Amino acid sequence: MSDKDTQPLSGKDLARKPRGFPDKRETLVHAQAGLVETITGVYRQWGFEALETSAFEYADALGKFLPDDDRPNAGVFAIQDDDDQWMALRYDLTAPLARFVAEAGQTLGRPFRRYAAGPVWRNEKPGPGRFREFWQCDADTIGAPGFHADAEMIAMGADALRAVGMETGEFVIRVNTRRLLNGVLDGVGATASDTRLAILRALDKMDRLGSSGVADLLGKGRMDESGDFTKGAGLGAAEVKAVLAFAEAGAKTRAETLANLSKATGSTDEGKAGLAELEAIALALDALGAPEGDVVIDPSVVRGLEYYTGPVYEAELLREVVGEDGKAYRIGSIGGGGRYDDLVARFTGETVPATGFSIGISRLAAALAIMGETGTLDGPVVVLNLDRGDPSVALSIAAELRRAGLRAEAYMGGSGMRPQMKYADRRGAPAVVMVGEDELAKGTVTIKDLVAGAEKAKAIKSNEEYREARPGQVEVARADMVATLRGIIAAQG
Amino acid sequence: MSDKDTQPLSGKDLARKPRGFPDKRETLVHAQAGLVETITGVYRQWGFEALETSAFEYADALGKFLPDDDRPNAGVFAIQDDDDQWMALRYDLTAPLARFVAEAGQTLGRPFRRYAAGPVWRNEKPGPGRFREFWQCDADTIGAPGFHADAEMIAMGADALRAVGMETGEFVIRVNTRRLLNGVLDGVGATASDTRLAILRALDKMDRLGSSGVADLLGKGRMDESGDFTKGAGLGAAEVKAVLAFAEAGAKTRAETLANLSKATGSTDEGKAGLAELEAIALALDALGAPEGDVVIDPSVVRGLEYYTGPVYEAELLREVVGEDGKAYRIGSIGGGGRYDDLVARFTGETVPATGFSIGISRLAAALAIMGETGTLDGPVVVLNLDRGDPSVALSIAAELRRAGLRAEAYMGGSGMRPQMKYADRRGAPAVVMVGEDELAKGTVTIKDLVAGAEKAKAIKSNEEYREARPGQVEVARADMVATLRGIIAAQG
Repeated sequence: MSDKDTQPLSGKDLARKPRGFPDKRETLVHAQAGLVETITGVYRQWGFEALETSAFEYADALGKFLPDDDRPNAGVFAIQDDDDQWMALRYDLTAPLARFVAEAGQTLGRPFRRYAAGPVWRNEKPGPGRFREFWQCDADTIGAPGFHADAEMIAMGADALRAVGMETGEFVIRVNTRRLLNGVLDGVGATASDTRLAILRALDKMDRLGSSGVADLLGKGRMDESGDFTKGAGLGAAEVKAVLAFAEAGAKTRAETLANLSKATGSTDEGKAGLAELEAIALALDALGAPEGDVVIDPSVVRGLEYYTGPVYEAELLREVVGEDGKAYRIGSIGGGGRYDDLVARFTGETVPATGFSIGISRLAAALAIMGETGTLDGPVVVLNLDRGDPSVALSIAAELRRAGLRAEAYMGGSGMRPQMKYADRRGAPAVVMVGEDELAKGTVTIKDLVAGAEKAKAIKSNEEYREARPGQVEVARADMVATLRGIIAAQG
Repeated sequence: MSDKDTQPLSGKDLARKPRGFPDKRETLVHAQAGLVETITGVYRQWGFEALETSAFEYADALGKFLPDDDRPNAGVFAIQDDDDQWMALRYDLTAPLARFVAEAGQTLGRPFRRYAAGPVWRNEKPGPGRFREFWQCDADTIGAPGFHADAEMIAMGADALRAVGMETGEFVIRVNTRRLLNGVLDGVGATASDTRLAILRALDKMDRLGSSGVADLLGKGRMDESGDFTKGAGLGAAEVKAVLAFAEAGAKTRAETLANLSKATGSTDEGKAGLAELEAIALALDALGAPEGDVVIDPSVVRGLEYYTGPVYEAELLREVVGEDGKAYRIGSIGGGGRYDDLVARFTGETVPATGFSIGISRLAAALAIMGETGTLDGPVVVLNLDRGDPSVALSIAAELRRAGLRAEAYMGGSGMRPQMKYADRRGAPAVVMVGEDELAKGTVTIKDLVAGAEKAKAIKSNEEYREARPGQVEVARADMVATLRGIIAAQG
């Protein structure tokens, strides 16, 4: 190691942040807060109550269920506590819930229906749009043996997406079940666990690689564009065909898809059980009034988390958006969930039927931002500070405006008139208020409408003319200040 | 190490969580969410905009400003990233802001006024009411050289506390300045940095130990009740008296306190400068209309964080509460802040005047919970599931109620009638809806008002009489279901 390597950073070099942990500005923070409020509101309306756990759990209590476990720490951020036990930051909101339920035991009462919103952390390789900290907003029912509880999760997920502004055709929730998959795997004789995993991973890429790419991955393997070769699951041609027939059984309606599936899944016990699960879910979705377009049965869905034991669901945005690179693409998955009947049993030995749904808030907020649907935010009225010796006048005017319910601030910097006006522009202020010695003596204030002012200024040719015309500017009695500002803000509406 | 030590935990033993990371249930989650919404609303109204940074920063970017640095990792949770750089979870929201400002440089524009709410982590010894994860809600102005910017923080803090329900006499914000303290330290000849630190730590304990305890800590030292001895700052008797005279200069009004202080702080340059700071703040507080009772000047205030360079403030709840142990005690500090002109200069070399205020959301939420001021939450209408073969009826009724705007759920457990009623009670349901075969045939629903029912049931002597009377129960046409439930909920109001 050279001296340069061991030298601590200093000065400007220090001011950096780890990759995958972006700062969020005004628009994104607002979008996210709005999503959390709306979605937890929907969860509450469906009868769920709030439970929040902390960022840290003991690593062994979280378990190892992340798909990407070929990295150090198996995808989590782990740290040793003072007593040498390993703690880890939660990678989702479900594993901590299972710990909570097991710890609470019978005192909790069941069903236990909870919602939660908060950050989770994954120690993955960061990349464009792939963060190491992101927010999720979950609902779970613990102690729910019937598959209509899964249907409730799915219909509620659709309800939540509609509540945040998604319309028919802009999103879809795809439903499948692990048991149906197991039935197919049994049917093609894939008994070894690594073969099964390879098949699941291949199916999970249907969206990205299409039928022929997946066929390669089911068979001998696939070479991607960069020349990297991924070893396949090693199935024979007939087996590949059977798996693909299953994966492509999707039709226009849930009933049609179920009919196709009943042919494709053959006669294994697991296959029959899986089909029965989906039939029960379809029946309950109808009772809940979930439109066909919102929820489809799609045998290609494989959720990455390994604790799922039955039905799994994936929520996807369908609308194409145009990225900064000018290309159209889909946002893709923004949530999902499934049944995890064995997760509490890890602790208690007792199987506790449970199902949940999770919406990726950070992903959804980013999607809304890309789609330009985060709304605009009104800037504060800025009261200029014209007496730098004594800011009392500016402070008292700002206080008066706030007492009247307006968003307002006195300028807090140390600069003169022109930078103060620039500041007001940058903040998106609807107007500035100015009180100099003249106005103080007369009991008036000067108000400049920044929108109307900018509009009128376009027609003005010279600096002199500008000073003369004072575009957008009025002088009113201080008693009329609030009403004048209200009028300006309403007109800008 | 014995075999027992190396054996991994299994089963029920796994279901535990690290100390200092409590789970939060319904009431506390709601209280906290309400506080964040209200307080960020106040910050917004005062013209601040949202900026949120992530949980992790590079450890060297956060710096070492925590008072409790005699523990491993200097009070933070730190972890090495893949590239061997140390990252740490933020211990407050200010240090990451300084990194953000330094990184953004001149592109940011100043003043930059931001607010943020989120969790912070401290790797301290957990204890009763002392957590290792807690929420803060901050506002900061970057690029604010005038002390009226500090006054704004203080007055806004008071406004925020009033907005969450605190009234005159229930809270106070105490204001002091580091420079005044420095002046006093200079005046008593305390030049060595460890002597100065010992004096500051002694003053910080005024609230807990009183004048004589602090005098011991300023002098030779103090033995506490448990027999532990804390070494003192080693001042002589005259110096102890001078420091105490300063620390006890507080009077009824800000003007009186300032007058006392001008006598006590002597003639050092730092003392004069500190006094001028407090005079400027007092002037601006008057202009902002901050009541004397809300904000006092209190020379005993010492904030623990070591990045403060000038004015410091401490927000305290004054109301006594009765704890679970039956004893009355004060909640104490629930926030504060100060000026930190050198924090950005760590990175850029350029002094950037800055000031901020932070409210301890977790502490405040816990205080509201203890005071019984978190409000009550309405439970969902529970639709019983009487046909365990086909839950469609219960599901479609719950969906109908939600479409009408009611909070409602179909029972999702696998149990019979009696546990379903118990479940509804536990959830605080205003009513349950029952539809059996009879009701289905007649096109009716049976609704039981759980509050009126429980009231009427008190007068009933026998099980038979109970079955006959069906207290609180009505059968109505399905078309009248929503109106009947609305009436019941309104009556329970």
